[in-house]
Amino acid sequence: MTTEQLVEQIRKKKSFLCIGLDVDLDKIPPHLLQEEDPIFAFNKSIIDATHELAVAYKPNTAFYEAYGLKGWKALEKTISYLNEKHPEVYTIADAKRGDIGNTSTMYAKAFFEDLGFDSVTVAPYMGKDSVEPFLNFKDKHTILLALTSNLGAYDFQTKDLEGKTLYTSVLEVSKTWVNAENLMYVIGATKASYIGDVRAIVPNSFLLVPGVGAQGGSLTEVCKYGLNEQVGLLINSSRGIIYASKGTDFAEAAANQAASLQQQMESILNAG
Amino acid sequence: MTTEQLVEQIRKKKSFLCIGLDVDLDKIPPHLLQEEDPIFAFNKSIIDATHELAVAYKPNTAFYEAYGLKGWKALEKTISYLNEKHPEVYTIADAKRGDIGNTSTMYAKAFFEDLGFDSVTVAPYMGKDSVEPFLNFKDKHTILLALTSNLGAYDFQTKDLEGKTLYTSVLEVSKTWVNAENLMYVIGATKASYIGDVRAIVPNSFLLVPGVGAQGGSLTEVCKYGLNEQVGLLINSSRGIIYASKGTDFAEAAANQAASLQQQMESILNAG
Repeated sequence: MTTEQLVEQIRKKKSFLCIGLDVDLDKIPPHLLQEEDPIFAFNKSIIDATHELAVAYKPNTAFYEAYGLKGWKALEKTISYLNEKHPEVYTIADAKRGDIGNTSTMYAKAFFEDLGFDSVTVAPYMGKDSVEPFLNFKDKHTILLALTSNLGAYDFQTKDLEGKTLYTSVLEVSKTWVNAENLMYVIGATKASYIGDVRAIVPNSFLLVPGVGAQGGSLTEVCKYGLNEQVGLLINSSRGIIYASKGTDFAEAAANQAASLQQQMESILNAG
Repeated sequence: MTTEQLVEQIRKKKSFLCIGLDVDLDKIPPHLLQEEDPIFAFNKSIIDATHELAVAYKPNTAFYEAYGLKGWKALEKTISYLNEKHPEVYTIADAKRGDIGNTSTMYAKAFFEDLGFDSVTVAPYMGKDSVEPFLNFKDKHTILLALTSNLGAYDFQTKDLEGKTLYTSVLEVSKTWVNAENLMYVIGATKASYIGDVRAIVPNSFLLVPGVGAQGGSLTEVCKYGLNEQVGLLINSSRGIIYASKGTDFAEAAANQAASLQQQMESILNAG
């Protein structure tokens, strides 16, 4: 999907909500465990109930890998379902991959071609030749970790690297890479006050913002600093939506939570 | 496997060779493509021919993920084969994972419990709470990326972070984490002259060293700076060994290459 198509969907749905499909068998409604593929059954219900309220879905691959072959199969079924039934939806493989050149190409093929995701999250530590192989793919986005929402972000990301912080250096250096227009960035909502600095460096890039909700980030704060002319934000919520209820009404409860966020987003877009 | 057991195997085999199982269907002998599972067939032959010369095997997960479900199945079969037939061998999932706390725990479960690897490579960018969940696992090692063998290492890793380079900061900060004794570090052989600095910070840790062979690193140079009293090195070679021949003699050719490296290692250990 192109950036323009994503923006079109955001305008149409009046939503820049991304729903994180981080499926933990210990947390889904117990009645689903009788299904042949409980993970996919859960995802399908969540997607069916929320796809008019969200513009993007983001499965975190860790949750699927933890269940081995069954988990990988559930991931394949989930992305196939999204691509077939809801092709207007933007898809993100939250994989945080990154390796040397030829190996990064293998990862890019895995997520963009084999699975058919629109985008994948990638770690910046190994530098240019670990990221550019992902950027080669046309109409696919590479979402680079810049400033993450966890406490460990202060260990290295916010430290001073030759006159800037490491994360601003990641933003600035990555702008010079080949096909940099295919980059987006992960910026945690728990650090909303930093988003102004981010926007000064990458005014036009989309930011994927986790940490609203369960982790305590504020939607209003993030939008205040992060919105740009093309909206430029994808706000992710995972647990707050998908685990809103453990009963048979889980999909309805998820839709209610998603609708609440979508309505706040609509107000913000209308005010903008 | 404990560090002591690994050292015992190194002394016994007079080898600190790790063989990278980076299987690309375009590069393996064409006659194997008729097998039901060509990737596993290739790995099994390589392992059978080299297990007395190598102390460790390191599949890079990217190569398996690129083939979807089939690839993941081949990875499962490979690690099961190693654990059942050659339990004395040390196993490394070269996955370069890393995510926030609860998600890192899912990855740790995937590699340590579900697949049964002895160790996994992890990226440091997200800091302490992204790595400590891996360190919780008893008798398992977490191999942190510090200084990688690719050109992109110069983008951030070797830059000055508050008076040190980023990679030395990663070494120093990670030493303070809970269960830090379960850490090993990736240090590229293409940067052998840096290994002295690394040893000054982590004198007792094992270093996993890629980049000897195809990428141009020198075994002698790496050993000069990197050996410690417990040997403390695992030298990885992938393409130079596993793709030594594209004929039906590929396993024998791989064994010859592995034997050549093992003999150099034996000389170095005897001289030490």
